[in-house]
Amino acid sequence: MHQLRRDDQSSVQVKIGYVGGGSRSWATTLMNDLAQTTDLAGEVALYDVDRESARTNAELGEWIQRHDEAVGDWKYTVAETLSDALADADFVILSTQDPPGETMVNDLELPAEYGIYQTVGDTVGPGGTLRAMRSVPQYREIAAAVREQCPDAWVINYTNPMTVCTRTLYEEYPDINAVGLCHEVFKVQELFADLAEEYLDADDVAREEISVNVKGINHFTWVDDAHWGDRNVYDLVDRWVADRESVPRFDPGDLDDESYFVNHRDVTQDLYEQFGILPAAGDRHLVEFVPWYLDVESGEEVQQWGIRQTPSEYRVDHWPEGEDERRELLEGDEPFEFTESGEEAVDWMRALLGMEPLKTHANYPNRGQCPDLPDGAVVETNVLVDGDGVTPLTAGELPDQLHDIVLTHVKNQETLVAAGFDGDLDRAYRAFLTDPLVDVGTEEARELFSRLVDAERDYLDGWDLSSSVLDHEESAIAADD
Amino acid sequence: MHQLRRDDQSSVQVKIGYVGGGSRSWATTLMNDLAQTTDLAGEVALYDVDRESARTNAELGEWIQRHDEAVGDWKYTVAETLSDALADADFVILSTQDPPGETMVNDLELPAEYGIYQTVGDTVGPGGTLRAMRSVPQYREIAAAVREQCPDAWVINYTNPMTVCTRTLYEEYPDINAVGLCHEVFKVQELFADLAEEYLDADDVAREEISVNVKGINHFTWVDDAHWGDRNVYDLVDRWVADRESVPRFDPGDLDDESYFVNHRDVTQDLYEQFGILPAAGDRHLVEFVPWYLDVESGEEVQQWGIRQTPSEYRVDHWPEGEDERRELLEGDEPFEFTESGEEAVDWMRALLGMEPLKTHANYPNRGQCPDLPDGAVVETNVLVDGDGVTPLTAGELPDQLHDIVLTHVKNQETLVAAGFDGDLDRAYRAFLTDPLVDVGTEEARELFSRLVDAERDYLDGWDLSSSVLDHEESAIAADD
Amino acid sequence: MHQLRRDDQSSVQVKIGYVGGGSRSWATTLMNDLAQTTDLAGEVALYDVDRESARTNAELGEWIQRHDEAVGDWKYTVAETLSDALADADFVILSTQDPPGETMVNDLELPAEYGIYQTVGDTVGPGGTLRAMRSVPQYREIAAAVREQCPDAWVINYTNPMTVCTRTLYEEYPDINAVGLCHEVFKVQELFADLAEEYLDADDVAREEISVNVKGINHFTWVDDAHWGDRNVYDLVDRWVADRESVPRFDPGDLDDESYFVNHRDVTQDLYEQFGILPAAGDRHLVEFVPWYLDVESGEEVQQWGIRQTPSEYRVDHWPEGEDERRELLEGDEPFEFTESGEEAVDWMRALLGMEPLKTHANYPNRGQCPDLPDGAVVETNVLVDGDGVTPLTAGELPDQLHDIVLTHVKNQETLVAAGFDGDLDRAYRAFLTDPLVDVGTEEARELFSRLVDAERDYLDGWDLSSSVLDHEESAIAADD
Amino acid sequence: MHQLRRDDQSSVQVKIGYVGGGSRSWATTLMNDLAQTTDLAGEVALYDVDRESARTNAELGEWIQRHDEAVGDWKYTVAETLSDALADADFVILSTQDPPGETMVNDLELPAEYGIYQTVGDTVGPGGTLRAMRSVPQYREIAAAVREQCPDAWVINYTNPMTVCTRTLYEEYPDINAVGLCHEVFKVQELFADLAEEYLDADDVAREEISVNVKGINHFTWVDDAHWGDRNVYDLVDRWVADRESVPRFDPGDLDDESYFVNHRDVTQDLYEQFGILPAAGDRHLVEFVPWYLDVESGEEVQQWGIRQTPSEYRVDHWPEGEDERRELLEGDEPFEFTESGEEAVDWMRALLGMEPLKTHANYPNRGQCPDLPDGAVVETNVLVDGDGVTPLTAGELPDQLHDIVLTHVKNQETLVAAGFDGDLDRAYRAFLTDPLVDVGTEEARELFSRLVDAERDYLDGWDLSSSVLDHEESAIAADD
Repeated sequence: MHQLRRDDQSSVQVKIGYVGGGSRSWATTLMNDLAQTTDLAGEVALYDVDRESARTNAELGEWIQRHDEAVGDWKYTVAETLSDALADADFVILSTQDPPGETMVNDLELPAEYGIYQTVGDTVGPGGTLRAMRSVPQYREIAAAVREQCPDAWVINYTNPMTVCTRTLYEEYPDINAVGLCHEVFKVQELFADLAEEYLDADDVAREEISVNVKGINHFTWVDDAHWGDRNVYDLVDRWVADRESVPRFDPGDLDDESYFVNHRDVTQDLYEQFGILPAAGDRHLVEFVPWYLDVESGEEVQQWGIRQTPSEYRVDHWPEGEDERRELLEGDEPFEFTESGEEAVDWMRALLGMEPLKTHANYPNRGQCPDLPDGAVVETNVLVDGDGVTPLTAGELPDQLHDIVLTHVKNQETLVAAGFDGDLDRAYRAFLTDPLVDVGTEEARELFSRLVDAERDYLDGWDLSSSVLDHEESAIAADD
Repeated sequence: MHQLRRDDQSSVQVKIGYVGGGSRSWATTLMNDLAQTTDLAGEVALYDVDRESARTNAELGEWIQRHDEAVGDWKYTVAETLSDALADADFVILSTQDPPGETMVNDLELPAEYGIYQTVGDTVGPGGTLRAMRSVPQYREIAAAVREQCPDAWVINYTNPMTVCTRTLYEEYPDINAVGLCHEVFKVQELFADLAEEYLDADDVAREEISVNVKGINHFTWVDDAHWGDRNVYDLVDRWVADRESVPRFDPGDLDDESYFVNHRDVTQDLYEQFGILPAAGDRHLVEFVPWYLDVESGEEVQQWGIRQTPSEYRVDHWPEGEDERRELLEGDEPFEFTESGEEAVDWMRALLGMEPLKTHANYPNRGQCPDLPDGAVVETNVLVDGDGVTPLTAGELPDQLHDIVLTHVKNQETLVAAGFDGDLDRAYRAFLTDPLVDVGTEEARELFSRLVDAERDYLDGWDLSSSVLDHEESAIAADD
Repeated sequence: MHQLRRDDQSSVQVKIGYVGGGSRSWATTLMNDLAQTTDLAGEVALYDVDRESARTNAELGEWIQRHDEAVGDWKYTVAETLSDALADADFVILSTQDPPGETMVNDLELPAEYGIYQTVGDTVGPGGTLRAMRSVPQYREIAAAVREQCPDAWVINYTNPMTVCTRTLYEEYPDINAVGLCHEVFKVQELFADLAEEYLDADDVAREEISVNVKGINHFTWVDDAHWGDRNVYDLVDRWVADRESVPRFDPGDLDDESYFVNHRDVTQDLYEQFGILPAAGDRHLVEFVPWYLDVESGEEVQQWGIRQTPSEYRVDHWPEGEDERRELLEGDEPFEFTESGEEAVDWMRALLGMEPLKTHANYPNRGQCPDLPDGAVVETNVLVDGDGVTPLTAGELPDQLHDIVLTHVKNQETLVAAGFDGDLDRAYRAFLTDPLVDVGTEEARELFSRLVDAERDYLDGWDLSSSVLDHEESAIAADD
Repeated sequence: MHQLRRDDQSSVQVKIGYVGGGSRSWATTLMNDLAQTTDLAGEVALYDVDRESARTNAELGEWIQRHDEAVGDWKYTVAETLSDALADADFVILSTQDPPGETMVNDLELPAEYGIYQTVGDTVGPGGTLRAMRSVPQYREIAAAVREQCPDAWVINYTNPMTVCTRTLYEEYPDINAVGLCHEVFKVQELFADLAEEYLDADDVAREEISVNVKGINHFTWVDDAHWGDRNVYDLVDRWVADRESVPRFDPGDLDDESYFVNHRDVTQDLYEQFGILPAAGDRHLVEFVPWYLDVESGEEVQQWGIRQTPSEYRVDHWPEGEDERRELLEGDEPFEFTESGEEAVDWMRALLGMEPLKTHANYPNRGQCPDLPDGAVVETNVLVDGDGVTPLTAGELPDQLHDIVLTHVKNQETLVAAGFDGDLDRAYRAFLTDPLVDVGTEEARELFSRLVDAERDYLDGWDLSSSVLDHEESAIAADD
């Protein structure tokens, strides 16, 4: 394929603006990858509402650069403002999160009072809805700053809710070059790599060698075709299912000692058996999009499907994620251990600069890649990334009933973005009410919504909080507090 | 408007083929209406799998005709075969039902074992799904007979599931002239008539004087405009809601002494408050289309919304409906009491013959009247009926989230019809699984589906009952019986 | 059907604002009809840029009212401003025209220099395009005044280009109640009335008794179904065609002595033979929408299709149309002769007031009535008019190749409206270039367009006349004048 | 990107079935390319109705293989039947043509009698229409043979009319793996390569280095984006246009001494100036899709646009193309001169086998790549070719008026395919009549169509030649012959 011709060996100079640049684990990974690249060089401007953390990351970056293995030439700076971070940037990375103690803890605990258990709570369901409502104003601001400071930059978003954040960027600034990246689909590539090894006698198949046809929306993606080279490996799924026990295979309590993020692919298997098409996301995400798995009496019950619910305390205690590891690095005596991260951010930059084309999946506005989903909605499919930018690959349609489930979420996400631009709480409520996880009566739904809004009102800039949807007894009480 | 010119006073001669012509109450109403019409005259050919009952109806018809008030000239005959009934018919009336003791009793009781309570069970939910599966083969046969015997006749269907039966007729014979009629929308016209009387100081407003803009699907129709003459009465809904108490207003048990068909319009009010658009169907139907009202622990709990669940025994005991009344009439000494039935069947025939145009609502394939629903799916909107036939009036779009709920049902109904033509039980199961009332786990859903199919296999002609979807323990046991 | 109940015999009081109220012939017809109505009474406020002519019409109206036969109670006033005319109006009538000597004469004569002959020149082709461009700013102004002065009034437009004028009203004020009325479809109803008389031995069939299924756009409408009562008369078309000679049946010059508006239905017949569906508009309009009939060497050649080209002098000399007749009436000794005009304006008002429903055809934004044409574009189909307002009847799709021809014009009309709102001459030019009548090279097309714009620049308010599309030699010369 | 892992150095063995395998020039190119490939090896089975020519090609192939430079291991065989050629093939190449003397000569000369001049005559216009009508039955037969003999093979079609042939393959056998390849877009890549050299001071930019975003249909493709690496070169078009003279720049006769295939890009420039988007096909193709350039009085006049009309004698005299060259090779003493052909067929095979991904353009059924064109119609856009097969890249929408022109042709092509499957001459005629080149009256159009059908009836298998569309005087005469 066509590639950039460079006549000398010099690196291309770029500026990367990093919003949420105080983030712990993820920043380290990026620094690791940049340091090992010789094609690119330049500045990473870190911006974070937690300035202190950004400063620590800058230190960390500079420290990493001092290692011999750091062949790439990078400077890490701290930006005082969002505008400073973005000024003349070539690439912008977005990775932000509200303090879980003031937000996500409500997202998870209040619904649980109504019997609504969420395994993740960051994409759909009550938690995803509130997170979407908080994100729209924030991501409008970012898009406006991009338009102002670096209108042609490529913006790579890693923040959840992926779909709503990315969609908001385009709604605010339609000419933005933005894309949302997520690891979740890697899981199904790994499954196929395993199947190739198991059934095709192949050795060491890497997930990157597996090409899957992805379609759907972030965390609820589906795969209806998979190849390893020109070998069809999708047909192996039937063998895999036949060789496994029937699901569910666990009892509540069985997984008490496993990681909160354990995935036995039981939901994957079960959905495949129901619909005849393979889910691409992890089980803990999948269960939040459909009504069948989380209609439980307690969080522990979820374990029957081979997954665990992440408790809200974990979210609070482990935030900011990676803080300990970062401290250890900076304060310890050990040199930085460079790795092959498997992250694609640097591959994306190289591809966008015309160096080496990349076929991967991404969240991007629908312009035909999912012909049965609304035009402009952010969907997740394969894309080709090269000097032309990002071009989606057509992914085809979804099976009937599954299509309808996906469409329900797409419409709710579109509604939340539109409601956020208008500050219209009534409209947002309708998306909340029709989420499959909100399997309570209308009275309870309205009360829960009101309590969530009350609890997180400090993070709901621009929403009209005088809406009548909040106007009932319970909400009135909450407002008195 | 243009009307038929008739130069003399003679009646137009027609033949009416009545499939399900042994039906009790409904047949009497038709006889009542025909007897009082002078525009039409002719023969009513009654066909029923219960031949005896058709014969009794013929007797009843002839007896009614012997009254002086019977100014119309009609002959009632019993047809030995479906073909005989339809041969050269001008109009065909369809009103059939499988014996509840062998079908509907399962439709209601088996789901209840899984905590799925249904107030009606004839349109959606597990009961509606099974009824649809039984109906497709039957209505294919009828459509084929129409094509053969009376290809240009107008077919008026009264049978539930209305949407699936009517859709099946068109799928089998695309050139059929068929329409599905249902009283349910009358209820919202009555509500507006009441509001006009209450708030506009009007006297004796008849429901026929109210024009409503209907859209949606049978038993889940919505109204976003209402006029009495040129006066907008839709705006009165807000006053009505403001003047009522908040819903829910009842406790379980409160309605133990009321009719099973009681309707306090609490669900109507609640849905209006959630979505800002008024439902047109009765509350006991509405609750079956959404997840919010029937997620109860017992049938009695449903009463909190001002409605009751019709028990399956009632369905069995009261079938055939109207048997006692018919007996009394024929065997008693009292003359027949002619009434103004309010039924529109005769008005339809007169309109279709070009006599007097009729604006009313009907279930008819979508050809643009609901531009946001799939082309060809059977939808319920206003139509104009005249010598040209039936022409739908454009009804406009539904609000976002509500649209998605309607679409879910439309797709499931389309899926059930397509599955029925292929005999594909797997596909039918997917529609079953994604019905909002089926709020159980996938395992239970599959088991319940299998048990329902097993229990009603005698009524499932043409379905491939060897499908793997039935392949689990419970189903195996049932098959052994 | 539901109708307005009036408990007494009093007339409903209305105000009619008449924009273009100086118009001659048409105003007289309206006065004739109003005078004979007892259901309505009130004021007609006449507004015209030619104030003098409006004043004469007011006189004429008052004079007519003084006759005994004038049972309706009407007052005619002259409005000094558009706002005065519309203030609190219940109905607004639009019937305006630019002075032909400064506009239409160019529309016809300049294209003729390039071999482009137009039989009418008011809808499509170069003439229709320029007229559209002049109309958009004018009809925006009217719509804005309606929004200000009488937001709920019903606006009845009679002005050409019908589609573009009506579309502009909705584009400026989306909540407007506007409709475009045109007589053209009456012609096909008359044809069917003739056929019923000829082939069905019927006597005196009136065009109102014929119901046709109309679809398409103004002056290029099509009919695929026709009933007289419940009798299908559409099938008679084949007999009619078989009984006529082959077309074309005339030679240039044959019609020199006939009216400019002669119509032998040769084009109607020919198009029916090409496409198997019957055109509903008059031949002189039809030929302007397709490339086959006006590709002639002289205007006279057009006569081979049984029609004549109206010369531009006629347009100038006979404008204002009806001036002589009006003079004669006012200055003569003869009393006014009341007629049954056949006009539907008063029927429309009565229907909209809930008095008597009306099924007729109208130009109205597409909301599903033409499911294969763009949503919102103004299309012409049957509508039901009653107290609910105007509700389109679904008309179904057009045959393949014909659909494409209609779509070409719809897109051009949509483009012209959008271009007019932006003042974007380049975009308007693209619609001009792709009109089927503009069968010249791109160079000539651009030159002709420039010359037309130059010649009519005084009527092109709001267009950006500095566009580069005008930037060529010829245009430069013209600009010097 | 993911690539096939081959653990040894052996070639992949394939069978290539070549339909039209007697073709001269093109076969030699393929043999040249295969001989230089070490990744693949195997058999090429040549099938042609001209068996003798296939045999000569087999000889030629074997002779080429005997050269030292022929590092690939290939065997050339002659297949007696289509089935033999396709049996177990991995790849199928289609390159067929009817004898011009019995077909194309009519396609060009008969229309010219009516003033319809065609520069190519193989895609649209009267010639393209007739060629389409001849092709549908032939390509149905091929698709049926593929389904039978090699259902999973990849079929690469090179035959015109590209769109209709490829569409026919899919209509007959929906699961076929087929793609249509054409060089035409290379021309616009070459233009951009030139512009990069001229304006960006680049040296030796190859057309393969230019990435263009292609959309539209074969021979009427458009480009709205172009990159060289990550440099936008599309913006250079404005400079190019500004630096050239105004078009047209030639007079009739100016090009008498140039090649029939000369291309001065005047039409390209002119269309860019009219629509603001760049055509991707050569000028002699472009002019056949729009009404502006071929409305001439003689073939010579076409030269004003910098192109020439290929006379029908040339088509006859030079068919089979390449015969002389082939003879010289086989009979001469010179060794075969291997070249870099620039052809992509071998690259396609390697990509489809998972060896090296290829981003290029191709004709393929629309599954979202052109979201404003009908689903399933064959469109031309970029595709990614790899072990997964062919995946279209989304290309986005076309500008308004241009979209309409493309849509007209798409609909006509779809109509011709559908008509061909039904043998429905009437329907084919409607596509003929509405082609922009058929700018004659309906009478003449019908006569011309009849004469073409009469003249080529031997090649119109399966068409109902008794259709009334042929029923006029001229045709009657022709039928007598």
